[in-house]
Amino acid sequence: MDFTIVREKLDQAVALLNEQRLDAWLTFTRETSLTPDPCLDLIAGLGMTWHSAFLIFANGERLAVVGRFDVENIRSIGGYTTVIGYDQSIWPALNAALAHHDPQTIAINYSESDPAADGLTYGMRRALTAGLTGTAYADRLVSAEGYIAALRGRKSATEVARLRAAIGSTQKIFVRLTKWLQPGRTERQIAAFVDNARTALGLDPAWDAAYCPVVNAGPDSAPGHALPGPLKLKPGHLLHLDFGVKQAGYCADLQRNWYVRARGEVRPPAPVQHAWAAGWAAIEAGAAALQPGVAGWEVDAAARAALVAAGYPEYQHAFGHQLGRMTHDGATLLGPRWERYGNAPLGLIEPGQVFTLELGVAVPGHGFIGLEEDVLVTARGLDWLSKPQRRLWLL
Amino acid sequence: MDFTIVREKLDQAVALLNEQRLDAWLTFTRETSLTPDPCLDLIAGLGMTWHSAFLIFANGERLAVVGRFDVENIRSIGGYTTVIGYDQSIWPALNAALAHHDPQTIAINYSESDPAADGLTYGMRRALTAGLTGTAYADRLVSAEGYIAALRGRKSATEVARLRAAIGSTQKIFVRLTKWLQPGRTERQIAAFVDNARTALGLDPAWDAAYCPVVNAGPDSAPGHALPGPLKLKPGHLLHLDFGVKQAGYCADLQRNWYVRARGEVRPPAPVQHAWAAGWAAIEAGAAALQPGVAGWEVDAAARAALVAAGYPEYQHAFGHQLGRMTHDGATLLGPRWERYGNAPLGLIEPGQVFTLELGVAVPGHGFIGLEEDVLVTARGLDWLSKPQRRLWLL
Repeated sequence: MDFTIVREKLDQAVALLNEQRLDAWLTFTRETSLTPDPCLDLIAGLGMTWHSAFLIFANGERLAVVGRFDVENIRSIGGYTTVIGYDQSIWPALNAALAHHDPQTIAINYSESDPAADGLTYGMRRALTAGLTGTAYADRLVSAEGYIAALRGRKSATEVARLRAAIGSTQKIFVRLTKWLQPGRTERQIAAFVDNARTALGLDPAWDAAYCPVVNAGPDSAPGHALPGPLKLKPGHLLHLDFGVKQAGYCADLQRNWYVRARGEVRPPAPVQHAWAAGWAAIEAGAAALQPGVAGWEVDAAARAALVAAGYPEYQHAFGHQLGRMTHDGATLLGPRWERYGNAPLGLIEPGQVFTLELGVAVPGHGFIGLEEDVLVTARGLDWLSKPQRRLWLL
Repeated sequence: MDFTIVREKLDQAVALLNEQRLDAWLTFTRETSLTPDPCLDLIAGLGMTWHSAFLIFANGERLAVVGRFDVENIRSIGGYTTVIGYDQSIWPALNAALAHHDPQTIAINYSESDPAADGLTYGMRRALTAGLTGTAYADRLVSAEGYIAALRGRKSATEVARLRAAIGSTQKIFVRLTKWLQPGRTERQIAAFVDNARTALGLDPAWDAAYCPVVNAGPDSAPGHALPGPLKLKPGHLLHLDFGVKQAGYCADLQRNWYVRARGEVRPPAPVQHAWAAGWAAIEAGAAALQPGVAGWEVDAAARAALVAAGYPEYQHAFGHQLGRMTHDGATLLGPRWERYGNAPLGLIEPGQVFTLELGVAVPGHGFIGLEEDVLVTARGLDWLSKPQRRLWLL
């Protein structure tokens, strides 16, 4: 097992406690095959079975209290200063460790807005209250929402390298697909080709395999999270794919588009060209707004306004989400301030964050155009991790 | 996608609401790639992105309120009577549905003891309270712990058939491994052989690939959740594997053991034979106690007492766990009443449940013997789903 990123993240975790003036961060979990805490991938990289506590302190101490069978594995990470095993109950060791360090604030993993910071289940929250009964610590728990947003969002150099590799492999698969595509292929055949090209590279899908890729051939195909169907690609159709691989634990997420020319057609018809230009104008408006210190919703608003100004309806989703170990990597969202997004669009852009930039336009009679690129925010501007699809690919 | 089991489970869900005198069961989830609710596999079989609510009523109504892009997929299951899509907020539609049916009790997914019934995160629990503000329903929420235990635990005929298939494939891999094994093989080589045999069958590991299989060669290898190391299998060593495949969504979990005879040895030395006999006497004592109506801890106690009576130390884990979509499938546990197990050992055995029966004995100077079989509880006695390893395999 390679724990390089785990050790990088543990160092970052200590620094962030000091930056955010928190004394301690507690990840409290169990049976992660059923209810994983998304933070565990960052700070352990291993699944846990019994009650397990990972306590990071601002003074640099990193303590794990885990079931006896997990002690050696957690030690092998090389990032924890103390690893304590137990047999019957976690509480004697955990409460002793808290009493020893006496943190005034303990951040725990819950958030109404950010699923990546919401790994603590309600049952485990209740178990925590019960286990801390009679101590001073039950009243010192605060949400780690903002803390986890920074820890997960600010990618390390190793993390960015892995994202680039996943995006590169995804682009390679799009190139292979383009060579094989022709009218008459069905959505299911196209999805199967992509599955095979991916498994030939030994890679996992970046999201649920059933709709990774999403494939939309022509105007009768429903965009969004729909399963590929028997629809055939025909002249005059747009073909749209939403796809990414997961490679070495990190995800790509790209949308690409093709147009099947009818007999005698040299270029796509005007409505397709107009929609393409409007979509890209909106992507560029959003990209220009995506700068450190700006709120996520402001980036979405810039892209959304550009698309509406070009005469197209608003897309019914966010303009972008963070990308990392998960396709939807949580925290700050480039999205509108809709109720279902909670506080996520209020987050501020920071250097080191990786976002998708995405939107879609339906072209009646032809199909769906979906644009999606992956970018890294830096202090000196955007670093495009994907090779942007500036032009529609013609078949 | 094959939704046969989802439809079976939805029918079972309605019947169980009536059996347990509950009016409604609510699964409330979002972004399941980060924080999956284990119940969703049973009642949807698809991942969700936005706030999603699945409401099953005792009168037979099965309602889903999901983001607009998920509507068609949930309809395609064929098990929901009503599927409502939304764009910006789930609450208008969800609260209207509750007001229409006016349930007096609504079971939700949290449990301190059972991770399989604890899919509601703390952040989502808070979001639920906020969303139900001003309605009568915030005060009608109860834990679905016992309800989910029955729904997940009582396997349908299709589920049992899939478990048998996964166990059969796992046994096939053990047979192949036995033909290839010889002294000098390292734990890592043995693990790699098992990985290759599994992927050749196109199957996933039943748990975290890093320690599926667990491999212990000889007396210097740590049992439990340890990674396979460079230790070599030598004459006089016990070899122990803990392994299972996941096939069509269902898991096997078996432990198997080999003994490498020293030059001139016909059978294993007396301490190995005694440990083997004691281990099997304990498995049989537990199997005899495993009957409908008995509490989980009583089964564990019978096996534990038999092992101690034979002069061996207690195993530091439960005698058995349920097996299904997950290796540790939650709810009633054949375990001691230790704090970390919560209420799980207090559950009563029911027909239709599938359990592992497992325990381990260290044999100083030789290694570790771990026994584990998979059994189905029926009204007429135990149905052994695995072919029990009654004898140590000799190399």
